[in-house]
Amino acid sequence: MMSNWLLPESLADILPAEARRIEELRRNLLDLYRTYGFELVAPPLVEYIDSLLSGTGGDLNLRTCKLVDQLSGRTLGVRADMTPQVSRIDAHLLNREGVTRLCYCGSVLHARPAGLLSDRELLQIGAELFGHAGVEADIEIIHLALESVRRAGVKNARVDLNHPGVLRSIVNEDPALAAVADEVCDLLSTKDVPGLVELGKRLPEVRESSLKALRDLTSLYGGTEVISRALHVLPSLPAVQSAMADLQALIDALPEFDFSIDLADMGSGYGYHSGVVFSIYAEGWHDALVKGGRYDGIGKAFGRSRPATGFSLDLRKLSSGLPAAPLARAIRAPWGTDPALVQALQALRSAGEIVVQALPGQVHDVDEFTLDRELVLENGTWQTRAVK
Amino acid sequence: MMSNWLLPESLADILPAEARRIEELRRNLLDLYRTYGFELVAPPLVEYIDSLLSGTGGDLNLRTCKLVDQLSGRTLGVRADMTPQVSRIDAHLLNREGVTRLCYCGSVLHARPAGLLSDRELLQIGAELFGHAGVEADIEIIHLALESVRRAGVKNARVDLNHPGVLRSIVNEDPALAAVADEVCDLLSTKDVPGLVELGKRLPEVRESSLKALRDLTSLYGGTEVISRALHVLPSLPAVQSAMADLQALIDALPEFDFSIDLADMGSGYGYHSGVVFSIYAEGWHDALVKGGRYDGIGKAFGRSRPATGFSLDLRKLSSGLPAAPLARAIRAPWGTDPALVQALQALRSAGEIVVQALPGQVHDVDEFTLDRELVLENGTWQTRAVK
Repeated sequence: MMSNWLLPESLADILPAEARRIEELRRNLLDLYRTYGFELVAPPLVEYIDSLLSGTGGDLNLRTCKLVDQLSGRTLGVRADMTPQVSRIDAHLLNREGVTRLCYCGSVLHARPAGLLSDRELLQIGAELFGHAGVEADIEIIHLALESVRRAGVKNARVDLNHPGVLRSIVNEDPALAAVADEVCDLLSTKDVPGLVELGKRLPEVRESSLKALRDLTSLYGGTEVISRALHVLPSLPAVQSAMADLQALIDALPEFDFSIDLADMGSGYGYHSGVVFSIYAEGWHDALVKGGRYDGIGKAFGRSRPATGFSLDLRKLSSGLPAAPLARAIRAPWGTDPALVQALQALRSAGEIVVQALPGQVHDVDEFTLDRELVLENGTWQTRAVK
Repeated sequence: MMSNWLLPESLADILPAEARRIEELRRNLLDLYRTYGFELVAPPLVEYIDSLLSGTGGDLNLRTCKLVDQLSGRTLGVRADMTPQVSRIDAHLLNREGVTRLCYCGSVLHARPAGLLSDRELLQIGAELFGHAGVEADIEIIHLALESVRRAGVKNARVDLNHPGVLRSIVNEDPALAAVADEVCDLLSTKDVPGLVELGKRLPEVRESSLKALRDLTSLYGGTEVISRALHVLPSLPAVQSAMADLQALIDALPEFDFSIDLADMGSGYGYHSGVVFSIYAEGWHDALVKGGRYDGIGKAFGRSRPATGFSLDLRKLSSGLPAAPLARAIRAPWGTDPALVQALQALRSAGEIVVQALPGQVHDVDEFTLDRELVLENGTWQTRAVK
């Protein structure tokens, strides 16, 4: 009998106080995105697997739960990320020429938890800006991402910036390096200098100048001064210079925020991202709270490549790190069909008050609310008074 | 290439105007339920299949999409109905003695569309009242269900009532009839009198008085006068009398609403429901917009039987029958990092205005908003003016 209601690992029910807080965060952020002109869309929970994974890496494939479509016999996937779905909507459904701003919020499912403490169900919320290749679009997106966590009450948020264009230009300059790009990414992400030296010995055809640039990348992290250091030590390739100019423009445009830079750590973004990439960290969350960046290539898989930049976050994770929400105040009322009582109930509820009617024979009150007032009949009229 | 973005049959993207309207309906209804003291919960998208189907009929099993849990190797189901999940939360997680009011809103998936025009993904919203067996709880639930459609702007809603207790008491009186209960249900749901006559001939051990009661049920539909007709023609069993008393109490307590009664049509509720059952119909929707009723038995499967009554509806279906929502008004603003402009943008957006910044080089405007005003620099200050 027990096993009937035990939930699978890394899946959970969200109980009242938490569920309501998540609902309020959801509204708050969707309304924020709306005031910036981002339009809400809702792609389906499941799609054909080849559509769902179009233009994404093998990583998303492994994270996606599959099932068989009873109508077509084809394989469906439960979405593990809504971003590719929103790109599909931009590319084909809306099919606009100009700039399109879209936002979304929905459940996504992971076949396995992404980390030791991660859930397999996320409530993903995000915003994507399509059709503009300039850094101005990145500035709007990073500003909105930071505003999101600030609205949620997160203090001391820090933005970590990267630009895969730097590594890509170094790799593209040297064909021997391009052949082992994935390995290079892994070594850089752990800043593994001995590993890079080892790689150089194993592959003598890799140029010494390339190896030096990779070793330099491992120390190019820290505050915003990293930009001038990078321009000084890295090869003076046009792509490196334009990447640094983008990062500088971003930092200048958002003076009130705290930035750090790490030019070595690509996360999983080397294959997917094409421009400025960022993560937002804050005290209380063990890993990045928001992830985002530019991914101009993705629409190509749908036959229509469009510049794109955006971000997303998990509302459940965001909520879990915030202080507990206080109980809402409510009014206790008796049960009855007296028209004056019905009218009093309606007036209070229309004004936004929570009024809980005690049903005949009911003994216990609800735990979730602070029932600090009651509705009573006094001198022939229904009135609210404080509970003693 | 085309097939990459074609969606599976009976699944759809929800585009901006519709998505925003659904979001507003969602908020409106969740806030309505909150003012009645219903607390929001969020069960997981997938669960072990035996937990998900506990206490429900084979019908739900057929509607549920299955997949294999990579962590446990067991079969998971994507929820096709959130009601059993919410019952599980009441029975085991909250585990309260008294009355518990819960509400929920989330995506559910059907393996096959429920009807010719139905989608396979629904946005189910609902409210459930646990721990009270009296008709007062049913009154609160039906009132709330009607208030839901009224708030959504549905006109001329009609509530169709039934009470499976009537048929069950007739069937339980006659063992020969109890053996063919499912067949009887089917015959009654289509009001198939010749079929009932045939059944009587085939099974001579069924009493003539039972057959007469079944034939009488097929004509017991219409307005609220059905109650007195039923009391007159049906066997005077205590369960029949108490069922009619419940229906009468309901109708008396909700004088402003339009009721009809059909004592033959059980829908799929004979096995599942245990008391007053209702459906809400309205012009513009080809079948029931809301379904609800009493299902006291369901918690038993989780080891803790609790009285329960509730309702649910599909927000996407609700929205699809409403008139098109008007475009929102918005303000067009130029791009820039001038602090005075940034401040003007912030002030407008904090006041709830939608301000869309035109990014450098952008030509086309967004289709979703009526850009009827623009933000311009006049005499040194940023001001909003009407677009000519």
